[in-house]
Amino acid sequence: MNHAKRIALLRRRMASLGVSALVVTHLPDVRYLCGFTGSSAGLAVTRRAARLFTDGRYSAQAAEEVKSAKVEIVPSGPTLAAVQWLAAQAQAGGTAGFDGAQTSVAELARWKAELPAGLRRKLLTPVKSPVEQLRWLKDEDELGIMAEAAKLGDSLFAHLLGFIRPGLTEVAVAAELEYQARLRGAEGMSFETIVASGPRSALPHGRASPARLPRRGLLTLDFGVILKGYCSDMTRTVCLGKPTASERQVYETVLEAQQAAVAAVAAGVECGEVDEAARGVLREAGMAEAFSHSTGHGVGLEIHEGPRIGAEQKEKLAPGMVITIEPGVYLAGQFGVRIEDMVVVMRGGGRVLTGSPKALIEL
Amino acid sequence: MNHAKRIALLRRRMASLGVSALVVTHLPDVRYLCGFTGSSAGLAVTRRAARLFTDGRYSAQAAEEVKSAKVEIVPSGPTLAAVQWLAAQAQAGGTAGFDGAQTSVAELARWKAELPAGLRRKLLTPVKSPVEQLRWLKDEDELGIMAEAAKLGDSLFAHLLGFIRPGLTEVAVAAELEYQARLRGAEGMSFETIVASGPRSALPHGRASPARLPRRGLLTLDFGVILKGYCSDMTRTVCLGKPTASERQVYETVLEAQQAAVAAVAAGVECGEVDEAARGVLREAGMAEAFSHSTGHGVGLEIHEGPRIGAEQKEKLAPGMVITIEPGVYLAGQFGVRIEDMVVVMRGGGRVLTGSPKALIEL
Repeated sequence: MNHAKRIALLRRRMASLGVSALVVTHLPDVRYLCGFTGSSAGLAVTRRAARLFTDGRYSAQAAEEVKSAKVEIVPSGPTLAAVQWLAAQAQAGGTAGFDGAQTSVAELARWKAELPAGLRRKLLTPVKSPVEQLRWLKDEDELGIMAEAAKLGDSLFAHLLGFIRPGLTEVAVAAELEYQARLRGAEGMSFETIVASGPRSALPHGRASPARLPRRGLLTLDFGVILKGYCSDMTRTVCLGKPTASERQVYETVLEAQQAAVAAVAAGVECGEVDEAARGVLREAGMAEAFSHSTGHGVGLEIHEGPRIGAEQKEKLAPGMVITIEPGVYLAGQFGVRIEDMVVVMRGGGRVLTGSPKALIEL
Repeated sequence: MNHAKRIALLRRRMASLGVSALVVTHLPDVRYLCGFTGSSAGLAVTRRAARLFTDGRYSAQAAEEVKSAKVEIVPSGPTLAAVQWLAAQAQAGGTAGFDGAQTSVAELARWKAELPAGLRRKLLTPVKSPVEQLRWLKDEDELGIMAEAAKLGDSLFAHLLGFIRPGLTEVAVAAELEYQARLRGAEGMSFETIVASGPRSALPHGRASPARLPRRGLLTLDFGVILKGYCSDMTRTVCLGKPTASERQVYETVLEAQQAAVAAVAAGVECGEVDEAARGVLREAGMAEAFSHSTGHGVGLEIHEGPRIGAEQKEKLAPGMVITIEPGVYLAGQFGVRIEDMVVVMRGGGRVLTGSPKALIEL
C-alpha cells in the first residue's frame, strides 16, 4: 500500500479545505492513511509531518505497520495527544481541521478544555469528510484486494450450493459459510450474515435465525468477507425446489432491474440515475412499493461507505469507486428476492467484481 | 425484558440531568430501552411518551420487537425525525437532551439547521451518558443472559482443548471456535478472536494469524460470543507441551494477580482499588512494566462499556455491574500470559461467571 501517496493526496485536500493541519481519529481513516490496524489511535497530519499516537499495547504492532508517519506511544488518550501535538506545532495563522462526522460533541469539548485558551477557538475547525472522500476512490492496490475479496465471496457461494438442503437451520448455513470463509483466509465477516428462507426472505435484513430451510421456497443469502481489511458484499436468492410462477416472475424482474442498474454505471453518471435504472424497471412492473431501500452503496474498508446509490442522489460516480448494486422486492408474509454485485466504476462503464451466476438456481 | 421499567428509570435520570426530553441515537442504547435491533433508529423519550423512528426496511421487525415505544416509519433520517418530533412536543421551557458522547459534531449541526430558529438554542443540550450509566447496572434478565453467554464461552473453551494440536494455524483454531459458537446459538463473536501462540502470545491483541501452533510454547485464547445481544469475554493461556520454569513462574504470578483482583470486587469499592489488587501482585514480582493495560472493563450489550477498571479510577463498583478481570504479562519476543473472567458485582463481593479452570493446562 502506498500510504505516503495517500498522505500527499490528503495534504492537497487539506489545502482545498483551507486547513493547514488535520487530526484523524476514525480508525478506518487512520488505517487508510498509515496502515495501522490497532483499536486506539490518533493521527496528526501537518503540511510537513505526520505522527501517529497510540498506547503501549500497540508499540510492537505500530512499529511494524506504520511507515508513513512517526509513531509516538502515549499512556492514554491518543486522540487528545494528537490534538495537543498539533497545537504545539501550530504556526501563527494555522488552523487544524477535524472530521465533524467522526468527532463527538463530547470529544471536541474535551479537546478544547485541554488546549491553551488562545488556541481553542482558532485551532479546531470542523471540515467535511476530509479522508472519507479520498477513500471513495480506490487505488490499484485496493482494487486488487477487493477483487480478491469478491472472488472469495463467489467461492463461498459455490460451496454453499452444495451444502444447502431442506431441514438445515439458517444458522447452520451461516455457520458453515463463516467457517469456510475463515479457512479460506477471511479475517471475519463484513456484517452479520443474512440467511432468510421462505417467508423470512421478505425481510430485507433477515439475519440467520434458528428457522429451518423449507422443502420449497426462496432463500436469500447476503454476506461479505473481510480480506486485508477490505469488505466484500454480495447477495443471491436461490430456490429450494421449483419456484412458483409468481416467484419466478419477481425474480426475473429483480434481475432485470439489477442488470439495468449495472449497465447504467459509468464515471460521470449521477448516483440517482443508477438508482432510477433499477427503480424504473420495478415501477414498470408494479413493484416499486415493494423495493423499500436504496439501490446500493460504496464499499471498502467499511461495509457502508459513500456514495449512496439512492433516489435523486446528485453525487457523480468517479473512476475507482466501488459500489454495490442490490435492488430487491419484498412481499411481506410471502417471499422476497434480492440480487447484489460489487461494481468498480470505470471511465466508460462498470466492471462487475462478483462472478457468481445470476440466473435463478433451483436446489 | 422489562423495557417499560428501563424507560421509567431513564425518566428519573432525565429529571436528575435537568432535561424534560431525550433523543437517543446510539443503537445499543435504543435496543436497551425498547428492544429494537435494527440498524437505523432514533428514539425520542419525553416525560409521558416514547417514540421510535426507523425506516421502511424495518417496519415488520419494529412492530414485532418494540412494545415500550410507539413506532413511526419515516422515509429516511430517523434521528432527525426524532429530534423534529421532540421539537413539536416541546412545551414552553422544556429542554431536550442528547448524549454528547454519541452525537457527532456534524449530526448536531444538521439537527440544528432543521429546527425552527427559536428552538435551536434552548432545545438541544448535551448531557453526559444518559443511558450508558443505566446500562452499567444489569437487571435480572440481563444477568441471566450474561451467565448463559459466559457458560457458552466455557463450553467452547472445553471443546478447543480437545481440538488444539501443534501444526494447526491460529486461524484454524479461531475458525473452529467461531463455527462451534454459531452452532451452539451465538449470534456472532463479540470481537475479533485472539489466538496468539508462542512469541505472538506477547502481543496483548494478537488476532488469529496464519502462524502455526508450535510443538511447545504458550497459547493465549481471548474470545467472546454474542448471545441475545449480550457479549461474553474470557481469556485463557494454555501450554503446548511442558512449560519452562519462567513460563510457569509468570503464569502463576498472573493467576495470583487475577485472583487478587477478583477477590477485591465488591459494591462500594473503587475501580482503581481492584486494578491495584492485580497490579500490586505484579509489581511485587517485578512484572509491573510488562502489564501494559487496564485490569478490566464493563461488558454488556457492547464488549467495552464502563466502568473502566484502571489505575486510579475513582468510580465505585455497584451491584449489578458486570466487569472483566484480565491482568496479563507480556515479554516481547518471548511469551505472554493473560487470564480473564467475567465477574458480577454483588453487595458483599463478586460472582465469577466464567467457569473454566485456571490452573495451567498442558496440552
